[in-house]
Amino acid sequence: MIDRMSSDFLGSDQRAQAVVALGGGHGLHASLSALRHLVDDLTVDELTAVVTVADNGGSSGRLRGEFGVLPPGDLRMALAALCGDDEWGDTWARVLQHRFAGDGEMRGHVVGNLLIVGLWELLGDHVDALDWVGRLLGAKGRVLPMATEPMDITADVRGLDPADPDALTSVRGQVEVATTDGVIAAIALEPPDPEVSPAVVDALAAADWAVLGPGSWFTSVLPHLLVPRLRSALVATEARLIVVLNLEEQAGETPGFGPADHLAVLSEHAPDLAIHTVLADRRSLADVDPAELAELEETVAALGARLVVDDVAADDGAPRHDPVRLAAAYARIFAAG
Amino acid sequence: MIDRMSSDFLGSDQRAQAVVALGGGHGLHASLSALRHLVDDLTVDELTAVVTVADNGGSSGRLRGEFGVLPPGDLRMALAALCGDDEWGDTWARVLQHRFAGDGEMRGHVVGNLLIVGLWELLGDHVDALDWVGRLLGAKGRVLPMATEPMDITADVRGLDPADPDALTSVRGQVEVATTDGVIAAIALEPPDPEVSPAVVDALAAADWAVLGPGSWFTSVLPHLLVPRLRSALVATEARLIVVLNLEEQAGETPGFGPADHLAVLSEHAPDLAIHTVLADRRSLADVDPAELAELEETVAALGARLVVDDVAADDGAPRHDPVRLAAAYARIFAAG
Repeated sequence: MIDRMSSDFLGSDQRAQAVVALGGGHGLHASLSALRHLVDDLTVDELTAVVTVADNGGSSGRLRGEFGVLPPGDLRMALAALCGDDEWGDTWARVLQHRFAGDGEMRGHVVGNLLIVGLWELLGDHVDALDWVGRLLGAKGRVLPMATEPMDITADVRGLDPADPDALTSVRGQVEVATTDGVIAAIALEPPDPEVSPAVVDALAAADWAVLGPGSWFTSVLPHLLVPRLRSALVATEARLIVVLNLEEQAGETPGFGPADHLAVLSEHAPDLAIHTVLADRRSLADVDPAELAELEETVAALGARLVVDDVAADDGAPRHDPVRLAAAYARIFAAG
Repeated sequence: MIDRMSSDFLGSDQRAQAVVALGGGHGLHASLSALRHLVDDLTVDELTAVVTVADNGGSSGRLRGEFGVLPPGDLRMALAALCGDDEWGDTWARVLQHRFAGDGEMRGHVVGNLLIVGLWELLGDHVDALDWVGRLLGAKGRVLPMATEPMDITADVRGLDPADPDALTSVRGQVEVATTDGVIAAIALEPPDPEVSPAVVDALAAADWAVLGPGSWFTSVLPHLLVPRLRSALVATEARLIVVLNLEEQAGETPGFGPADHLAVLSEHAPDLAIHTVLADRRSLADVDPAELAELEETVAALGARLVVDDVAADDGAPRHDPVRLAAAYARIFAAG
C-alpha cells in the first residue's frame, strides 16, 4: 500500500523517540541534518549515527594508510551534521570540515580528520574520542563507527571483462567499487566479522526506529548489513526499520537500478531483516515508468513493509534530500507508528 | 643591589595585576606555567602572552612553508600552558600538543598546529582564531603573535670562516641561528618593520608588569625588541619590565655568555628600554665565579634596575624553571612593586 500522508498529519504517539541512523557520506549527512530538527522539537530524544568505516580514498584513505586507523571522514561529516546551533557549534563544525588547499603535503587533508586521528592516538578508544568531538561541537547526537577496525569493500562486478561480459571480476576498495564501470552483482567486507562496539549494539537495542539510507547503496548503505554482529543487532532489535531510497540512480554504483532493485539487493544481502517502512520521494517516483512503480509496490509488499511516498527532495533540482522536508517525513512516519 | 626576599614575604600591594609575558618556545611555556598559578590565586587578573613568530623548523616551519602562515608552534605551546585545570582543558591541551609519529607524510606534525592553521584559513584573522583556541582550552589568558606576518631571524655570526676568525657571516633562520657553531654578534629581523596587532599594543599599554624571558636569548627573547612597533609599545608603557635570566648558557646561541652578557646584548639591541627587575636563580648564580657575579650586579645597577635572586629552578637538576617557585618569585616581585 502507499500512504500519501498530508503534511498536517499529526499522530497520536507523542512520546519522544530513540533513533539510530545508519549510513555514511553525504547520504547519512542528509539524514542527520533532518533528524537534528527532530531533536530540536523534542520528537527525538536519543539520536545515534552508525557510520561506515570502509573508505579508502582522499584524506581518510591517506590517514588510514599512514596510521592503520579507521577512516575518519564519514565520522567527521556525521559529527558536523549534528553540531550545535549556536556560534560555538557552528564555528567548530566549520573548522572540522575545513579542507586544506594549496600544493603541499597537507593538500586535501581535512582538519577534523586530523583531530579525530590525534584523539584516537591519544585516548586509545574510538568511541571515547568521538564523544569528545561530539562534546566540542555540542552535538545533538552520538556518532559511532560501524566497526572498530577499518574495513575493505570487495565487489563481484560484471561487465569488466571484454572477452566475457557475464564474467565476474573482483574489485576491492570503496573508491574502486563506487566508480566501477561494470555492474555490481554482490559485495562483501574484509575482514568478514569485525568487532562492533557495544555502544552500537546497545543503541540499536534501545531504539524505537532505525533509519538506513539514503546514500551510496553498495558502499555506504549495504555494508551495515554485512557486518554480522551489526546485522544481528538490527535483526534482534524491536526498533522499526525505515529504508530511505535515493532520489536517483548513482553512476558507478547503481546505473540502471530502479527503486525496486535497490530494495531487492538489500534483502538479498540480509534476507532476515524486517523492514517496516520504505520512504521514497514523490517527484523521483513520478519520473519512474509505471511498470517499475508497480514492481516497487510489489517488492515492498513482499517484504511486509509499508511504502511511504512524500516530498523529501530539495527544490533546486539537485538530487539531494531537503533536511526540513525529510525531517517532516520522518516525524509523520514516527507519529503513524 | 640584591634583594634576597624571604619566601614568606607578603607585599602590601594586593590589587590584582595585569601581566604581559613575552617570549617563545619552552621558556615562555615555563613563564606561563608559573603565571597561570597567579591567575588562580587572583594575584593576576589579566594575562597576555606575546609570542615570537620566526620559527622555521619542524611542523611550524613546514606549515609556514606550505601556507605562508605564521609558524603556529610557539603559539600553540603558549595556549597549552594556559589550559583550564579541569578534564576538559587538560584533555584538549593534550590533544593540541599531540605530535604524530610514524613514517608517513604527517610524521612530526602537531595536531594543534594544524587546528590553528585551519582556523586562520577559515576565519582570516590571527587574533580571532587564537581566541577561539583559547576558549576551547578554557585558557587562563590570551595568546597573541608578536607580529601578524611571519618573520625570519638573521644573525651576524663570528667564527664560521676558518680563514678569518673575526669575519662576520650572515646566518638566516631561527633554526640555523639557534644551532650555529659560531658566536652571535647581532641579530635582525626580516621584514624589519612588521605589522603588530593592536591587541598587543593595547595589552602592553594596560599592563602593570611585562615579563621578558626566560628562553632562547637570540631567537625567542630578543626578537620582541627588534619589532619597532612592539619595542615602541614596550618603551611607552608604564608597565614595569621584569627580565628573567636563563638558568644556564645555551649551546649554539649563548656559549660562554654569562648573566651580564645576556643583559648587555639585550640593552645593545634596545638601548631605550627601561628594565625594572632582573630575576636570577640563586643556585645558578652560585655556579658563577665572583667576577662574573660582580659584573652582573654592575650591569643591573647601570641599567637602573633591581636584581632579584630567588630559588626558581627545578629540584631535579634539569635546567628548567619550576612553575610553582617561579610563580612565588613573580608574586613577591609584584607585591614589592
